[in-house]
Amino acid sequence: MNTKENQADNGIFPKGEKAPADYFTGMAWVQLLVPNDPALHCQVGNVVFEPGARNNWHTHPGGQILIVTDGIGYYQEKGKPVKLLHKGDVVNILPDTEHWHGASHDSGFTHIAINTNTQKGIVVWLQRVTNEEYNSIK
Amino acid sequence: MNTKENQADNGIFPKGEKAPADYFTGMAWVQLLVPNDPALHCQVGNVVFEPGARNNWHTHPGGQILIVTDGIGYYQEKGKPVKLLHKGDVVNILPDTEHWHGASHDSGFTHIAINTNTQKGIVVWLQRVTNEEYNSIK
Repeated sequence: MNTKENQADNGIFPKGEKAPADYFTGMAWVQLLVPNDPALHCQVGNVVFEPGARNNWHTHPGGQILIVTDGIGYYQEKGKPVKLLHKGDVVNILPDTEHWHGASHDSGFTHIAINTNTQKGIVVWLQRVTNEEYNSIK
Repeated sequence: MNTKENQADNGIFPKGEKAPADYFTGMAWVQLLVPNDPALHCQVGNVVFEPGARNNWHTHPGGQILIVTDGIGYYQEKGKPVKLLHKGDVVNILPDTEHWHGASHDSGFTHIAINTNTQKGIVVWLQRVTNEEYNSIK
C-alpha cells in the first residue's frame, strides 16, 4: 500500500514495517531497499523515526553509512558528544564502533542506512538508550 | 553555495560539479557524498541528469546500487531491454556488468549511486551511448 499516509516523510519510499521494539525505543519504521546481497556485500534500508524515537546502542561488524533525507536527528558514538543531523548530512560509521541514532526531541528524522561489508555481519544490538541518557541531550 | 538554484531536484543535496564530458553525454551533475573509504570499501555520490543526459557504457569491478530519488530515468544492461526507473526504485548492478543509466527524454532524473567493494576498483568507462542508441528507446 503505497498511499500518501504510508509514505516516509521524504516522500521517496514507503514507510515500511514497524521497527522491532526490542531494538528501538519509541515509534520507528523500516523499509528494506536492498536485501543483503552476497555479491555486493551490502544491505540498504530506509528508516523513519518519530520525534523522540531512537535505536539501541549497537555496532556494525562491517560498518555503516547514514544518509539523512529528512528531519532533525541525533547520532552518538560511545564516549563522544551527540551530533545533530539535518537533511543532506552523511555519517560514516566504522566497523565495531558502538553508537546509536534517532530523532531529536521535537522533530521526526529519516535516513537511508547502508550496511557495508556485510560478509562480516550486519548488526550487534546492545543496551537501550535510556530516557535518562536521551533526555540529558541539550 | 547551497542555494535553491544549486540544489538537486530532490532538494536533499547540493547539485555538485558538472559531470565529466568524456564519460557523460548531455548535462549531468555529481555531488560526492562519501569519498572512497578504505574501511567501509564504499563510495557514495548523488547524480542529477538533465532530460536526455546519460553516462557512457561502463562497468563496476565491485558492483553498484542505484537509489532513485527523483524524476524518470533509463537503465540498461548490455543485450537487455531498457528499464524505466521512477522515484523510490532501486537497482543492484553486479560486478563487471556492462550498463548505462541516465534521464529519460522528457524528464530529469536523480539517483544516489553507492559503489560497493571499492577495493576491487570503482568504475571502468567504455564507449558512449550514441544518439542512435538513445533515440531508439521507445
